[in-house]
Amino acid sequence: MSKILVMNCGSSSVKFQVLQMPEENVLAKGVFERIGLDQGHYSIQFNETEKLKEDKNFSNHEEAIQLLGKKLLELKIIESYSEIQAVGHRVVHGGEKFHDAVVITDKVIADIEACTDLAPLHNPANLTGIFECQKLLPNTPAVAVFDTAFHQTMPESSYLYSLPYEYYEKYGIRKYGFHGSSHKYVTQRAAELLQRPIEQLRLISCHIGNGVSIAAVEGGKSIDTSMGFTPLAGVAMGTRSGNIDPALIPFIMDKTGKTANEVVFDILNRKSGMLGVSGISSDLRDIEDAAQEKIGRAETALEIFASRIHKYLGSYTARMYGVDAIIFTAGVGENSSVIREKVLKGLEFMGVYWDPALNKVRGKEAFVNYPHSPVKVIVIPTNEEVMIARDAIRVLANH
Amino acid sequence: MSKILVMNCGSSSVKFQVLQMPEENVLAKGVFERIGLDQGHYSIQFNETEKLKEDKNFSNHEEAIQLLGKKLLELKIIESYSEIQAVGHRVVHGGEKFHDAVVITDKVIADIEACTDLAPLHNPANLTGIFECQKLLPNTPAVAVFDTAFHQTMPESSYLYSLPYEYYEKYGIRKYGFHGSSHKYVTQRAAELLQRPIEQLRLISCHIGNGVSIAAVEGGKSIDTSMGFTPLAGVAMGTRSGNIDPALIPFIMDKTGKTANEVVFDILNRKSGMLGVSGISSDLRDIEDAAQEKIGRAETALEIFASRIHKYLGSYTARMYGVDAIIFTAGVGENSSVIREKVLKGLEFMGVYWDPALNKVRGKEAFVNYPHSPVKVIVIPTNEEVMIARDAIRVLANH
Repeated sequence: MSKILVMNCGSSSVKFQVLQMPEENVLAKGVFERIGLDQGHYSIQFNETEKLKEDKNFSNHEEAIQLLGKKLLELKIIESYSEIQAVGHRVVHGGEKFHDAVVITDKVIADIEACTDLAPLHNPANLTGIFECQKLLPNTPAVAVFDTAFHQTMPESSYLYSLPYEYYEKYGIRKYGFHGSSHKYVTQRAAELLQRPIEQLRLISCHIGNGVSIAAVEGGKSIDTSMGFTPLAGVAMGTRSGNIDPALIPFIMDKTGKTANEVVFDILNRKSGMLGVSGISSDLRDIEDAAQEKIGRAETALEIFASRIHKYLGSYTARMYGVDAIIFTAGVGENSSVIREKVLKGLEFMGVYWDPALNKVRGKEAFVNYPHSPVKVIVIPTNEEVMIARDAIRVLANH
Repeated sequence: MSKILVMNCGSSSVKFQVLQMPEENVLAKGVFERIGLDQGHYSIQFNETEKLKEDKNFSNHEEAIQLLGKKLLELKIIESYSEIQAVGHRVVHGGEKFHDAVVITDKVIADIEACTDLAPLHNPANLTGIFECQKLLPNTPAVAVFDTAFHQTMPESSYLYSLPYEYYEKYGIRKYGFHGSSHKYVTQRAAELLQRPIEQLRLISCHIGNGVSIAAVEGGKSIDTSMGFTPLAGVAMGTRSGNIDPALIPFIMDKTGKTANEVVFDILNRKSGMLGVSGISSDLRDIEDAAQEKIGRAETALEIFASRIHKYLGSYTARMYGVDAIIFTAGVGENSSVIREKVLKGLEFMGVYWDPALNKVRGKEAFVNYPHSPVKVIVIPTNEEVMIARDAIRVLANH
């Protein structure tokens, strides 16, 4: 019996959970926001129903993480720091160096730093979280769990772009894929729900949140995924364009006077996707509401959003020569029956028969296929924190 | 009974055919190359087996096209210019203005000029061909047949990128699609071979040449296609990358010091695709040979090339809620049993049962599916010139 602190550090935020393992009970969870900015605040949920909220500015991650430690003690979530068996850190990019979670050492830190080039916004924040947790809990082992590691099983034909090969060798340009802990959690859970060994299953995992990624998972291993070198690629998302004709970048630069970086970071990452098409919102709930009232381009935006995912289902079923189950997870995937309906429509040709009544489910585990459907369709709320805690315990046991 | 001159003018080349209609017999065909450059030459095939070849420099398109006219008379392909009922010009980009072929007028020329922004390399050359043919044949009607027109039936959810909507309104940024005359020809021919009305058919057309585009054609209408705003998008090609993570462009710029235009035009269009991955050649025949001898990355290149097309088959079958026939056309599609085999492998889940013995066919019309296969697979040599001639006659009749 042990407690695992799961950390997810962004450039201006720290999210955490304390999990009781192996029961996987959440003892506490919370978030520290606007670190280094004004109007900072934090909140901690604990004892299942209690919640602490406070406005407080944090000049840096150190202040936030020191306060987190103090509050864990004050709120009696832990009696002493020694109760925490391990800290599991979410790290966005592990490049090709990390095929699995790993116990953090100086060498590991150097290797994560070496991947910073591949995730300049995320890895430095993740490293800051690692350093500050080392200060708070100097005697507690820490484990890095990479968003990219689950996809390192992809074969060359999936991960190589058809670019000059030297770009792969020199610069590490390839498809990495993201949302690894989510895809791993829901595919493992799907095997349990299907009561079949994961080694025998061909699964498509649709992680549909503000970011969206689809993964083809064969025998428990990711063999293809929609995100690419960065999380911009693949399908249309809340504010991200997904794949576009690459020739559009110089064209847009020419028309707007923006630099390539501005086009990619300001436009394609932040002002495209559902926000760009609808002109209304990046939030699918707002767009669904607007579509019901036939406002603007909301309906078109929904069609674009769903049709890109719909096509990936066909694509990845072809990729695996068939599919046993399709999984929907994350905010939109778990909750939006409208999106699931559009995504699943017309897939009878590949053995998908789904029940509109069952598909009304929101936010909980459920099969939404008819019993006779050869391909099962399962809604599974994701749990990246549990996956990180499991990975932390597993790699520590083998260390 | 009439003769149609079909013209395909590039920036330094002129290709032509003289077709006897409605029989669709080729009376002559040829090419003028390296126009405006040194080492110019031309060749004309006629009377089925005869061939004229000559080295000759052309300072401009006018010289080449004037010589073409002279040779048509000298070689007795025509008795007089008045025998030519019409000239059909291939025009690459018709933007959203042209949903079909059109008789060329001053207004049409102005509209083609207005599309130059969308195809800066191609439309000006096409226009030069139109002007020079007007000089040669001032009394002969001319028809523009657009590569993009066939795809103008795509619905908004297919052609809109998930970019800020104003980019579509202001700059015409959308998916246009190319190879229209080819996709139109082979899908019409497929309906004949299937002896079913095209209105009832869901077809996937795979035009696999040095350029590659896949089209989903429902009821005779293109509803989706793999190329995009330009012919760079979609699958991997001979030297073109197809879709990549758009964030790679600034990354490659940063690493190589190239401009965005250099990355897109020099690298993604000319040094990527099969050439980039294999490091051997852009020609699939060379790569197939190298793969047999296990040379370098030839096998990987073939896998990448085929797997991208393979996934589009699943994608577009999902798009149309099923498929009746899959068509292979153009250089590689018509001739490479190796690529067809890799593309078709494992599609039994969607009703594709193909016969390896029949698949050995090269360059002629043939069904390669087993008789019981619900989805038919057909090799159909493309014939863009015939399609252009047919379109020319049809729009002139309705003019």
